[in-house]
Amino acid sequence: MTAPASLLQALPRAVTIREVGLRDGLQIIARVVPTPAKLEWIRQAHAAGLRDLEVGSFVPARLMPQLADTAQVLAYARTLPGLVASVLVPNLKGAERAIAEEAHAMLVPLSASHAHSLANLRKTPDDVVAEIGRIRAARDAAGSHTALEVGISTALGCTIQGEVKACEVLRLVQAVLDAGAERISLADTVGYADPAMVSRLFEQVLKVAGNRFDTAHFHDTRGLGLANCFAALQLGIRRLDACLGGIGGCPHAPGASGNVATEDLAYLLASMGIDTGLDFDALLALRKKLAVWLEGEPLHGSLWRAGMPRTLRRQQVPA
Amino acid sequence: MTAPASLLQALPRAVTIREVGLRDGLQIIARVVPTPAKLEWIRQAHAAGLRDLEVGSFVPARLMPQLADTAQVLAYARTLPGLVASVLVPNLKGAERAIAEEAHAMLVPLSASHAHSLANLRKTPDDVVAEIGRIRAARDAAGSHTALEVGISTALGCTIQGEVKACEVLRLVQAVLDAGAERISLADTVGYADPAMVSRLFEQVLKVAGNRFDTAHFHDTRGLGLANCFAALQLGIRRLDACLGGIGGCPHAPGASGNVATEDLAYLLASMGIDTGLDFDALLALRKKLAVWLEGEPLHGSLWRAGMPRTLRRQQVPA
Repeated sequence: MTAPASLLQALPRAVTIREVGLRDGLQIIARVVPTPAKLEWIRQAHAAGLRDLEVGSFVPARLMPQLADTAQVLAYARTLPGLVASVLVPNLKGAERAIAEEAHAMLVPLSASHAHSLANLRKTPDDVVAEIGRIRAARDAAGSHTALEVGISTALGCTIQGEVKACEVLRLVQAVLDAGAERISLADTVGYADPAMVSRLFEQVLKVAGNRFDTAHFHDTRGLGLANCFAALQLGIRRLDACLGGIGGCPHAPGASGNVATEDLAYLLASMGIDTGLDFDALLALRKKLAVWLEGEPLHGSLWRAGMPRTLRRQQVPA
Repeated sequence: MTAPASLLQALPRAVTIREVGLRDGLQIIARVVPTPAKLEWIRQAHAAGLRDLEVGSFVPARLMPQLADTAQVLAYARTLPGLVASVLVPNLKGAERAIAEEAHAMLVPLSASHAHSLANLRKTPDDVVAEIGRIRAARDAAGSHTALEVGISTALGCTIQGEVKACEVLRLVQAVLDAGAERISLADTVGYADPAMVSRLFEQVLKVAGNRFDTAHFHDTRGLGLANCFAALQLGIRRLDACLGGIGGCPHAPGASGNVATEDLAYLLASMGIDTGLDFDALLALRKKLAVWLEGEPLHGSLWRAGMPRTLRRQQVPA
């Protein structure tokens, strides 16, 4: 069967799923998962084939007690072969800890929504751009190998501000690249994106950032998470954030589903013949553990109920 | 913002959602919804802007008691202005009833999976092609205006047979067109499709059937329903089946989600600026009624929990 060249030609042959449950997932959950459970989570994620994990955030422990053990969790993650362990850092102080603790990568969030940026970080987007410059300088001065990624959040809309203009996203992408970001990710932080918006915005960002823009982060708040992933894949995006069990979410849509579920995204990719290196049985077993560690928290996703289709093995061979 | 021409250029400006909850949704649910509730369901669906409803099936009442009132339900649906009321008919006998009761359209299912066709209808696909020829002849002989649609089911995989070859789907599409089908729909009956499969298969079917192929039917069994709808829209498909609350489903995946949820599909379309003529408040109000009529049955979908994004009004204007 021949593919419509223009629609599928840029689909990548392999995709990395970055599991962000330990940071973006836990961040919104009040409960503190004990450190030994987090280490077991990381061990099993690694065993399931996940090689890119966001393990925590260097923020003050009083603001986010559930991530207070990030240094310890990161130290364990760094012992697993082939695993890229990243942390979120909101500012230079957090970045200095990420550098000192030898995180493989640090993610600095920058909200493209001025209103969201002020509400969340008490800084304008341009203040954050300046901080990214300082972070890059500190990283280079330390001779550190910690990679510097900037995540443009609310890139496709904002619950406070409403629309976020593409021209502002493009301006900020250029600004953070100029300030020293080595990699860009775009996030639909609040679940406002649709695949046509993704297509339009991502094409433009790729023109500015080239292959330094390779990662997308979608929420499934209104059911469009995987459709948005597909739209991103059609433009060659080859790294996607997700959370096992679809945990995470948005404080402005309580009860709604959260991040794209890792296991469902892995199924989408495997079905399309895109290699992820993941073991579905191991992923679904870890999802069950998660349900215990997070007892009472809603988990999401579809694959765990329906199981794998009998055709999948055949579909895994790239078309 | 300019769109990547090749990815979004075929998106239709308007899409018809055919609500199939009264047939495909109820068919798998043992409970019998009383006729007055069905009429209220239709009245409210019409008030919400739905103009294309599959209201039942002309099958023997002993096989499907929950659809035994199809003639009465159809008669009511025909009184509502602008509403296209269709029924499923498995054979000539059912078609004769649809013609006698003046259904606006009748849908004949033909399973592209030989194994599924035998298990479900005790006929081979080619037996069904022959029956379609007899149905067309009977329709024409009666001077009837009932449109004849053929729904190719298991077009993207089968729980019994596994893979269904595209060349067999294409052969059957040509055969049913030759036998007198006026319109073709393709169905992922068991939730095996992914958007790349949809893209590849639909492009080929369009080459055979042209604009007589304009309708797709997706299940959300493994979470890919809306991604598959997007892939179909990218090829210009302009009519999509769905069920309010995502009811329906597959006997081979008990507990899994069913058809694509009407309200989530409507949101996908509205967000992309594609006109559906639907009123979200009215749709969500009807979904609440459904939860009462189908008490104890699982409903699905995401929009009802998350609510509409504040940006939507702006997004409804075609880009």
